[in-house]
Amino acid sequence: MSTIAKAYAAPAAGADLIETTIERREVGPKDVLIEIKFAGICHSDIHTVRGDWGPQSYPLAPGHEIAGIVAAVGSEVTKHAVGDRVGVGCMVNSCGSCVNCKNGDEQYCLEGMVGTYGATDRDGTITQGGYSTHVVVTEDFVLTIPEGIDLDVAAPLLCAGITTFSPLQHWGAGPGTKVAVIGLGGLGHMAVKLARAMGAEVTVLSQSLKKREDGLRLGADHYYATSEESTFSELAGSLDLIINTVSAPIDVSAFLGLLTVGGTMVNVGAPAEPLPVQAMALIGGRRSFAGSMIGGIAQTQQMLDFCAEHGIGAEIEVIEAARINEAYERVLASDVRYRFVVDISTLA
Amino acid sequence: MSTIAKAYAAPAAGADLIETTIERREVGPKDVLIEIKFAGICHSDIHTVRGDWGPQSYPLAPGHEIAGIVAAVGSEVTKHAVGDRVGVGCMVNSCGSCVNCKNGDEQYCLEGMVGTYGATDRDGTITQGGYSTHVVVTEDFVLTIPEGIDLDVAAPLLCAGITTFSPLQHWGAGPGTKVAVIGLGGLGHMAVKLARAMGAEVTVLSQSLKKREDGLRLGADHYYATSEESTFSELAGSLDLIINTVSAPIDVSAFLGLLTVGGTMVNVGAPAEPLPVQAMALIGGRRSFAGSMIGGIAQTQQMLDFCAEHGIGAEIEVIEAARINEAYERVLASDVRYRFVVDISTLA
Repeated sequence: MSTIAKAYAAPAAGADLIETTIERREVGPKDVLIEIKFAGICHSDIHTVRGDWGPQSYPLAPGHEIAGIVAAVGSEVTKHAVGDRVGVGCMVNSCGSCVNCKNGDEQYCLEGMVGTYGATDRDGTITQGGYSTHVVVTEDFVLTIPEGIDLDVAAPLLCAGITTFSPLQHWGAGPGTKVAVIGLGGLGHMAVKLARAMGAEVTVLSQSLKKREDGLRLGADHYYATSEESTFSELAGSLDLIINTVSAPIDVSAFLGLLTVGGTMVNVGAPAEPLPVQAMALIGGRRSFAGSMIGGIAQTQQMLDFCAEHGIGAEIEVIEAARINEAYERVLASDVRYRFVVDISTLA
Repeated sequence: MSTIAKAYAAPAAGADLIETTIERREVGPKDVLIEIKFAGICHSDIHTVRGDWGPQSYPLAPGHEIAGIVAAVGSEVTKHAVGDRVGVGCMVNSCGSCVNCKNGDEQYCLEGMVGTYGATDRDGTITQGGYSTHVVVTEDFVLTIPEGIDLDVAAPLLCAGITTFSPLQHWGAGPGTKVAVIGLGGLGHMAVKLARAMGAEVTVLSQSLKKREDGLRLGADHYYATSEESTFSELAGSLDLIINTVSAPIDVSAFLGLLTVGGTMVNVGAPAEPLPVQAMALIGGRRSFAGSMIGGIAQTQQMLDFCAEHGIGAEIEVIEAARINEAYERVLASDVRYRFVVDISTLA
């Protein structure tokens, strides 16, 4: 029997989101039914429902930062039980058999991972996201949220957390390394917290010094304004790893000059326009310009466990569902510190 | 007592090279006097002496692919002896005390490594390159050319060899890896030979199939024309490492699409114009776009030893000194397979 869930969804491209109902599939043998408690608002929710990134099927409920409680499980489910605290991130399925899935990199599935909303699921239906009272997800894509992290601050970890944790871990952030984070927003503030907890020396590179106090409070050791030319001379050749969380075009070559020999700058945001890169900025120090997309399921679990161990959650502003449209405008105006999280009880 | 050496040098920017004499410094306690036997012609020799890369001091003798025999050593020299077969590459000195020098990455010396020609040496003089009968170099920057490699085919290893060996080794080319080489020229043909000897599966990506037979003979397993669109669909997501030896602007994002998850494309040439890179081409597979410049002294020695062990030398066309200007025109017309080497005995 399928579940009728309340949801907040866009009825058409560009339209405000409205309260509605969506159908969740019957809980299959390997499925988990989750009663959603909180859903984070990610910048990409806005772009997707508005059709900025291509046509969508409507109504569409976004949301891929989901935290809740298991309400039912299928007969073959072994990883989760009713009452468990769980989360769902940016993907709800993948082929499971390609080389990338087998390596634990489901986000790079060669058949294409199934996105949590707006994607065609294996059964042909269109997936619906977390601005909703319930969701049914195959158990392999359901994460355990450890005791010690509240569900509201855990929700954004499922996207903003793993998106920054994955490159920090992959490129070796830790004691003795110098990590910089470009942009102190939803992703950037998580990168700062995580890099600090990993033991790295952390520098924030922000357009201005407006959020300096906040940045230092969140764990940054240093805070520089990129609007000051002196920042680029002062930090030249000093950073091992730069995580760029800014999706707008920036002067990549200037930032590459801040890296040590062998250093890497990783983009986690994807501006639509190509970024001009001076080859000499790479060649002159065996430097790399790289990209990274969320993280695999096992790594996401590892991130959640790491956050629990280090007492890390997102900095959030909890809102009721009726304020989602207003929150969207504030996200677009960069007026949020640092993530909106929808209290789904206000929807139910 | 200084040495007066015969040389082939440019008297001014844009002028043909002519026979002349240059002065080599007195052999100091740690210096080695080398009687040069062969000097390779690198594309960058041409750009430098013509002033394409900035003003130079003239007369200027280029040449940083030097092979010869030790003719004298200073009183404190321990690494080389009279009669030894030796080589000199792109640098003749560095500070020796910065973090990069201490790591064996003298090419990235924080004070700037001293180039083999056209650079200001520690004593304030301007360095002169290998189109010359003799050179005096501090022993730490003199490489041993093992028995088993002829001096003529060894000369180009000092630039073309190490420039490709270093990124191949750094990014793990070896058995089980798929390596592609963009461009089959002076650098590219060395990359093919070295990657093959390291045990990688090697693909050449060339504009056309003109040199296909040659590429396969040199060790490539596959050979594709980049002018064919099908090349990009057929090889999509299949390569672990791409060495780009082409200095002209290419569509980097298209080549990034050929990489596996975690793959790296390394530029060893530096086009003057910035290269546009689609962030999504990196993000969609945790890919890296990197750069690499020659290699350190220890790694250069390792490369020479590796070449001796595997019977690898450059493919060369030996010319007499009087034909250098003609050879320059042929290099600019890509009419060389694959490196001109000047027989310095024709100068003496």
